[in-house]
Amino acid sequence: MAAQQFDFGMIGLGVMGRNLLLNMADHGFKVIGFDKDNQKTTAFEAAATPGTTVKGVGTLEEMVTQLSAPRRIMMLVPAGKPVDDVIESLLPLVQQGDIIIDGGNSHYTDTLRRVTYLKGKGIHFMGVGVSGGEQGARTGPSIMPGGDQEAYPHVQPMLEAIAAKVNGEPCVAHLGKGAAGHYVKMVHNGIEYAIMQLISECYDLLHRGAGLNNDELHQVFDSWNKSDLQSFLVEITADIFLQQDDKTPQRLIDVILDKAGAKGTGKWTSQDAMEIGVPIPTIDMSVTMRNISSLKEERVKAAALYNTQAGKISTPKEAFIQQVHDALYFGILISYTQGLALLHRASTDLDMQIPMQKVVSVWRGGCIIRSSLLDLFTKIYTQNPQLENLLLNEQIAQLLQGKEQNLRTVAAIATQNKFAAGCLLSALSYFDAYCSSQLPINLVQAQRDYFGAHTYQRIDQPGTFHTIWNK
Amino acid sequence: MAAQQFDFGMIGLGVMGRNLLLNMADHGFKVIGFDKDNQKTTAFEAAATPGTTVKGVGTLEEMVTQLSAPRRIMMLVPAGKPVDDVIESLLPLVQQGDIIIDGGNSHYTDTLRRVTYLKGKGIHFMGVGVSGGEQGARTGPSIMPGGDQEAYPHVQPMLEAIAAKVNGEPCVAHLGKGAAGHYVKMVHNGIEYAIMQLISECYDLLHRGAGLNNDELHQVFDSWNKSDLQSFLVEITADIFLQQDDKTPQRLIDVILDKAGAKGTGKWTSQDAMEIGVPIPTIDMSVTMRNISSLKEERVKAAALYNTQAGKISTPKEAFIQQVHDALYFGILISYTQGLALLHRASTDLDMQIPMQKVVSVWRGGCIIRSSLLDLFTKIYTQNPQLENLLLNEQIAQLLQGKEQNLRTVAAIATQNKFAAGCLLSALSYFDAYCSSQLPINLVQAQRDYFGAHTYQRIDQPGTFHTIWNK
Repeated sequence: MAAQQFDFGMIGLGVMGRNLLLNMADHGFKVIGFDKDNQKTTAFEAAATPGTTVKGVGTLEEMVTQLSAPRRIMMLVPAGKPVDDVIESLLPLVQQGDIIIDGGNSHYTDTLRRVTYLKGKGIHFMGVGVSGGEQGARTGPSIMPGGDQEAYPHVQPMLEAIAAKVNGEPCVAHLGKGAAGHYVKMVHNGIEYAIMQLISECYDLLHRGAGLNNDELHQVFDSWNKSDLQSFLVEITADIFLQQDDKTPQRLIDVILDKAGAKGTGKWTSQDAMEIGVPIPTIDMSVTMRNISSLKEERVKAAALYNTQAGKISTPKEAFIQQVHDALYFGILISYTQGLALLHRASTDLDMQIPMQKVVSVWRGGCIIRSSLLDLFTKIYTQNPQLENLLLNEQIAQLLQGKEQNLRTVAAIATQNKFAAGCLLSALSYFDAYCSSQLPINLVQAQRDYFGAHTYQRIDQPGTFHTIWNK
Repeated sequence: MAAQQFDFGMIGLGVMGRNLLLNMADHGFKVIGFDKDNQKTTAFEAAATPGTTVKGVGTLEEMVTQLSAPRRIMMLVPAGKPVDDVIESLLPLVQQGDIIIDGGNSHYTDTLRRVTYLKGKGIHFMGVGVSGGEQGARTGPSIMPGGDQEAYPHVQPMLEAIAAKVNGEPCVAHLGKGAAGHYVKMVHNGIEYAIMQLISECYDLLHRGAGLNNDELHQVFDSWNKSDLQSFLVEITADIFLQQDDKTPQRLIDVILDKAGAKGTGKWTSQDAMEIGVPIPTIDMSVTMRNISSLKEERVKAAALYNTQAGKISTPKEAFIQQVHDALYFGILISYTQGLALLHRASTDLDMQIPMQKVVSVWRGGCIIRSSLLDLFTKIYTQNPQLENLLLNEQIAQLLQGKEQNLRTVAAIATQNKFAAGCLLSALSYFDAYCSSQLPINLVQAQRDYFGAHTYQRIDQPGTFHTIWNK
């Protein structure tokens, strides 16, 4: 083959890399993928749609020399040192003006460092978030590019071609400066953590609390997916309850261990939100609940010591299902609210210039947190891109007020019946605190001034004050 | 005066530095303090107890040359760059074997970096946490040194002399390797944040909910301070309600603005706990609530939009006070539990070798979180220094079981009546999750495997598994 005939190169032909590249080939681009693992390159070529131009190679040199200029090279490798290693391997092979894209879940501070480092060498570096899992990558993911405005037009045609489409619009847009793409993807994952934990808490209330079996749970979640709760995560939850185990006569859900893994993006969301002082307690709690789940041995000991057994819930089944529906809806809306408020603040505090209406528009299709709510959010942020918090929008207020009492009821039932409903409760705590013109934290200010002379503000005049207490 | 006659030098004569040094002088040590601010050195000398040896100087050289070897120099300056600046200024003046102590609230990773840096130059560097506020520093703080075992004996006599005493034992001990002192102090502050927020939530329930006025609130907290809730923070809370404003005829508490400041140690505790995967949701929520409090303008708008007004609580006053007492006790115990579980894990995961029984022993006196509970914790950790979590101790189980139902009742009342009780609710969520042998997080594992092929574990055989879902 002649040199410089491929449009796009991929480093790493794992699940995501392979499928993104095959997707691109299906849209007429000539693609070349590198992986050290021979089996992966072979499998990659074998999976290509007949008639598409797809090649797998075993060295970086082979890939880079066959790409047309400016070279467009994406890597999908584990976050951290592997990304830096790939960059160092590429540097002797690329030329000024080439574009290197990190499509993985890198932490945004790493991305910022790499942008600066490569800019110094005349190479464009873009951090791009990709969501959609295996299936989404192959047939249409949600894509969150950020960074170099000069480089973006060179990759825009490919990204728009492969992205999920909603009403014909591709779910991809340039989402801001520097590391904005990875930051937006990180917050997407934080919201994903929260929604998953909320669904699992509702599952627990319906299953152990109201006694629903897997078929009934399937029916409930399937009907919810046809309601205002329509979303990818509710949809797959309905599916999950039907899945048969292939090793026992049971449903698979009942033989899966209750210890959740994590890859770090949820944790980063919480840590980075704390760094700039934005409250996202429902996302925090979802990370916390995964951490508690990992303490299985301690939990078993504690359960024996405290004789804790969640109680049967006495509310009539149909009424309770509706209450839980509303509580879940409320909790999910609050999870988006927290994540989007974080992006709004990060946009200015971290100088990312994130276009909020584009973020929610991109999330409408292809990604894990896609849901019918995102159409509404797109309308709201299009009208007011500078909205500080979704709770301040009147349409949102109307939606929430219809569900509020049922969330309160479910919260009370959970606390009375020993259900660990941390995310539902934290969503309510957030709502009640955010909607309080007066919080009792004047007492915290008094305490801080009492023991540490940290000063306080007054309600009736500006300035800071210190009192010698307990004179 | 002749050279080399002072025992101990201090850099920074602010509230904490000045008072610690005067405290040391009261115990017979000859002390010298440096501050660029002339007024501070003069005020420092003027505040000395007659007959003690106290000197204030305006240059570092003057201070260093008058210290006996090995020189013991503590700095109490703001965390971050100021600490590095002081170190660089000291380096040309000190000798091998001298001991530099950072007594401020530095982040432990900074302390680790400085330990290594100075070790390379033959200088001992110790991170030492000090708690007690202005008053504690002067009359007996709780002191949390960590790091260099070789250097510690040289400062031990001074630290033991000035520390608070409980049953004649000084509230200071060497608390582990590297940056252990600052790590322990950071977690101390995280617990402090949680307890302060819990107290403020109970204040809100009693004040706006049950209608108690400031005199009644004083009586309640004063009586609680004579009960199993005896603690410094409950004690000063009782005082606070009596404090008269000097600008209006009101009590001071009622004119303090409900926006809490923070200096970062609470935030660090949450971020660092997430880093090593230890759940501390009540501390997280206390940080979150301070962050929400800072959004005063948004809160006022949201309150108008949602027409939220916390309800009057109908439980008879005396019964409700007892319920809130038990909820606060439970929440405080859970806050210590989370912080101590974090220290237990950090001890091994971060190779700090923290002696847990000494940590709780040191916290018994002088510090902001001192309380009668710490006597009990000292007994428990002395019997079992490797205890993973206080909840696994039978005595703790007995104490909590007597309060559990009242916490559940208060939680339900708060959620029904629109009180933002995030820390109380998170304490209950933590308890219910930690005491669950079975959590619904098997569903989260199923979801992760469904969309991301992240694999799951099974309850009936080892290994990790992946399913092609929805075949």
